Amino acid sequence: MKLQDLGEFGLIERIAGRIQPGDGVVLGIGDDAAALETSPGRLILLTSDMLLEGVHFDLAWTDPESLGWKSLAVNLSDIAAMGAKPRHFLLSLALPPTLSLDFVDRFIQGMLTLAKRHRISLVGGDTCASRSGLVISLTLLGEQLPAKVIRRAGARPGDRVYVTGTLGDAALGLELLRRGEREGEAIRRQLAPEPRVAAGLALTEAGLPTAMIDVSDGLLADLGHIAERSGVGARLELESLPLSPCYRERAPAVAADPWHLALAGGEDYELLFTAPPGQEKAIAALLQGFGTPVTAIGTITTERWIAVLDADGRVYPAPNPGYDHFA
Amino acid sequence: MKLQDLGEFGLIERIAGRIQPGDGVVLGIGDDAAALETSPGRLILLTSDMLLEGVHFDLAWTDPESLGWKSLAVNLSDIAAMGAKPRHFLLSLALPPTLSLDFVDRFIQGMLTLAKRHRISLVGGDTCASRSGLVISLTLLGEQLPAKVIRRAGARPGDRVYVTGTLGDAALGLELLRRGEREGEAIRRQLAPEPRVAAGLALTEAGLPTAMIDVSDGLLADLGHIAERSGVGARLELESLPLSPCYRERAPAVAADPWHLALAGGEDYELLFTAPPGQEKAIAALLQGFGTPVTAIGTITTERWIAVLDADGRVYPAPNPGYDHFA
Repeated sequence: MKLQDLGEFGLIERIAGRIQPGDGVVLGIGDDAAALETSPGRLILLTSDMLLEGVHFDLAWTDPESLGWKSLAVNLSDIAAMGAKPRHFLLSLALPPTLSLDFVDRFIQGMLTLAKRHRISLVGGDTCASRSGLVISLTLLGEQLPAKVIRRAGARPGDRVYVTGTLGDAALGLELLRRGEREGEAIRRQLAPEPRVAAGLALTEAGLPTAMIDVSDGLLADLGHIAERSGVGARLELESLPLSPCYRERAPAVAADPWHLALAGGEDYELLFTAPPGQEKAIAALLQGFGTPVTAIGTITTERWIAVLDADGRVYPAPNPGYDHFA
Repeated sequence: MKLQDLGEFGLIERIAGRIQPGDGVVLGIGDDAAALETSPGRLILLTSDMLLEGVHFDLAWTDPESLGWKSLAVNLSDIAAMGAKPRHFLLSLALPPTLSLDFVDRFIQGMLTLAKRHRISLVGGDTCASRSGLVISLTLLGEQLPAKVIRRAGARPGDRVYVTGTLGDAALGLELLRRGEREGEAIRRQLAPEPRVAAGLALTEAGLPTAMIDVSDGLLADLGHIAERSGVGARLELESLPLSPCYRERAPAVAADPWHLALAGGEDYELLFTAPPGQEKAIAALLQGFGTPVTAIGTITTERWIAVLDADGRVYPAPNPGYDHFA
């Protein structure tokens, strides 16, 4: 069998299947971050993301500050999706010898600007020369009390499904970049996403989410991860999906199906979570305090699939969910 | 200025200089691992290493099991050099689509064999496709009590300098691989190094080392790191350097200077440490229990340089220390 037959998630399952659960491992492979009980009553959350030139970013259209910002932001988003507080991070860089020192300075500057905003610090890592492109690998450590951490597992039939912000903008931005545009709201969302750290913590401290994940692979794929881990399904209300003015204006010209990027586009780094029915007002009020819009977009079901329903209650032919690196 | 003018260590200093020390950061950039006080009285040690195809390894001569083993071993060696106990690790992999699943399986197998030996567990990470070579990034977490952790800083004038095992074998092995050889002790040391985890912990529990590092950049470079952090210098006794029978037999034919690889060759992953005078017998007896040879090779001085003296007490013209990724 080849990697492309197995797929990214198949490979992860294959590796996970060969691991003996270790001492103090509360959550291993299969959530936004690993959770380790290194001292009684206290969890360390650990997450890693690797970004490769030519795969995750293109130096033709990202500025170094945004790249540094985004490299940290995608990890902050994972910690936010656990309802944890980010603390420290390690940065490993493989740098092509042709890269200017000015680029590296500005990259670090973008990263440290976001780090300062979240009061976290760079504590170590690794540097080496790369013979091909730039490689960025970042590991972020967070903290939370064991009883408070929000997993992907935990969604129950009847729970409402919520998402912060708007969907599809980052994927739209990528498409616009490919078409030669360099400015605008969607492009800003693609290049320098704003992780929902304060919102994730506030929801968790209020004990509201039953399951949570960040939208990195795309709405359908990430809701699929919650559904799979929770042993449930979901019904999504197409007309409820939160779309930005920019998306409404530009998406129809970019994709044949105007809902496609909102349903299957990745990298929005919004929080996708479930909560018991009747909490809609409490959730909206709580997140309003952080200037974070939130929308109820569906309901958890006992079925084992995700159905997307249009305004007339008919099943909408949903696109293939998400992005598989090896497919 | 260009990266190659600044050099690898210049770049690290440059980044470190822009960081505000964070809450709970006991040791940031500049030691074998970062030390974080996440709960009172308990330190988390964190280290990352990135390995790139074509830079750190060559698939023409490494088997997948050894590559998986070595990727974890180099991180274990960093935790060993802090005198800490390794616990959990994250693995990020960027895989070329042409790589076979069999390769990945054997790579994971090699890594998990070493993990099992040290009772540590893989808890998460990231996977993606690579458009160029294979990239491996590993982050290892360890634990130790704050009072026990051994830093690079701490060596005092008069302390003796010790090293475990033998020196130069891994660099010799690399040279033999380049010349087409595929078997033998030196090649085994290069492809699948044995990190000195138990020895590092035992020395630390006994309170013996004043400073410690692992030999990854080469003896002179790594002793240089201890000297710089401790604000001291050292005198090395050339004839005391521990050399393997294989090294004695093969090194003279490989390098013009038979001492070169022992002094400046990297990747031995032995422990290099300093201890107060008069502890030589206690150290040898302690490490004998782990089957780990140890040799006193010099003395810490108040001078700010490292002098290498030959059998007649004359200064030996030492090679340029270590490996700089950007030089």
